[in-house]
Amino acid sequence: MIRNIKLILEYDGTNFHGWQIQEKNRRTIQGEIEKALKKIFKRPIRLIGSGRTDSGVHAVGQIANFKLPLGVQNFELLRDHSKILKALNANLPEDIAIIDAVEARPDFHAQFDAKRKLYRYTILNGTDRSAVLRDFCYFYPYRLNLALMRREAKVLLGQHNFKSFQAADPAVKGEKSTIRTITKLSIKKTGDFILIDIEANGFLYKMVRNIIGTLLDIGRGRLKERSMKKILKQKNRALAGTTAPAKGLCLVKVNY
Amino acid sequence: MIRNIKLILEYDGTNFHGWQIQEKNRRTIQGEIEKALKKIFKRPIRLIGSGRTDSGVHAVGQIANFKLPLGVQNFELLRDHSKILKALNANLPEDIAIIDAVEARPDFHAQFDAKRKLYRYTILNGTDRSAVLRDFCYFYPYRLNLALMRREAKVLLGQHNFKSFQAADPAVKGEKSTIRTITKLSIKKTGDFILIDIEANGFLYKMVRNIIGTLLDIGRGRLKERSMKKILKQKNRALAGTTAPAKGLCLVKVNY
Repeated sequence: MIRNIKLILEYDGTNFHGWQIQEKNRRTIQGEIEKALKKIFKRPIRLIGSGRTDSGVHAVGQIANFKLPLGVQNFELLRDHSKILKALNANLPEDIAIIDAVEARPDFHAQFDAKRKLYRYTILNGTDRSAVLRDFCYFYPYRLNLALMRREAKVLLGQHNFKSFQAADPAVKGEKSTIRTITKLSIKKTGDFILIDIEANGFLYKMVRNIIGTLLDIGRGRLKERSMKKILKQKNRALAGTTAPAKGLCLVKVNY
Repeated sequence: MIRNIKLILEYDGTNFHGWQIQEKNRRTIQGEIEKALKKIFKRPIRLIGSGRTDSGVHAVGQIANFKLPLGVQNFELLRDHSKILKALNANLPEDIAIIDAVEARPDFHAQFDAKRKLYRYTILNGTDRSAVLRDFCYFYPYRLNLALMRREAKVLLGQHNFKSFQAADPAVKGEKSTIRTITKLSIKKTGDFILIDIEANGFLYKMVRNIIGTLLDIGRGRLKERSMKKILKQKNRALAGTTAPAKGLCLVKVNY
């Protein structure tokens, strides 16, 4: 029987060129973990993530899985999953941490089986930037109308065609459908921080950051009230707001 | 009249060789701020900090002051302190942030007038290390007896000779007296984190980190119950515990 290991992981995306292995030998999260797996199991192992995250985007609950090659079925590490966890953490750079490693069903697939993903976007909305949190929030010192932002955000809830929030650049491939369902969108204020939680059954490339950018443009008055409805309807990226920077974004949870 | 400006500042100490300017042209917090002041006011200005922090130690409430050269008394920046704040932040690297700049009494001295300092030490006491918080906490995965740590910590409250917790290395200079008064020492647990807050009228070089290391050695069972009293009494650094790493330490507040 094939043994399938599911990982829950955390990373600081600042010094990575995103999740996915790239041709150019750039430092990626998938690449670093596959390197560690190869070191531990002495053969190449493919890691499947729930989805890619962009350069600079963080995660505290990313999910991935890998199948153990048959030859290592009796490997000492397999008797105790905490040993896989320890071996991986010992072989990974300090900006990636494995939170848990558990045995999954043989057919579990971190990408295809994902039902919902929850992202959090953190905005520092005070007068002063933060030195300590500089890589984990978007410093946005402008006055925001949160009540308006909340009203406009409601328009996005449910199933819609999110073409207006798809990335404008031509790198977008394999996104056949632009229809997604947003199941949660909340805007909370705590001290100088604004936390925007957004959950959907899936996200188009750069969709979260384009939604956040649009909400901020509305909150600041750059886009008018009732803009969100029009933007969504027009299915045209050019109408939506700016793309919020990657560093404020964090993948919090993947539901299966 | 001499104008004296007081700064409240925050920094991520990870990539600095501590607060104080050094001969070897190393990157220091004082050095970076003095460089920014020189750029803004077109002449060298000496910055006085409430005290040095070591390489890797962070701050969210460090206090410093500088005197404006007489020649710039009517400089545009002086009419509005928020302009000094903005000019400084615009000229500082992103791992230093000025939180506030206010006019102080002409004789205010950030170091000599400091009455009490509050430090927080953050320990990650779970089974897994953190990628995102790696530079801001000490990952200590061992079981700790918090009740015992709290009892032993109480011994340190009040005025004592803290020679046993002074740095062992010969770099210690100018510490004529090793008597200090600890006014607060609390140990809180929140999730996997243990937060140790320690406030005193002043600290010897590496004193906080030596106290934390000793408390951890006690909590883990490496040092026996009632050790703290003996260590304090003996006035001998060799008896105390290990020095906890700098990255868990943060200067939270300076009282005047």
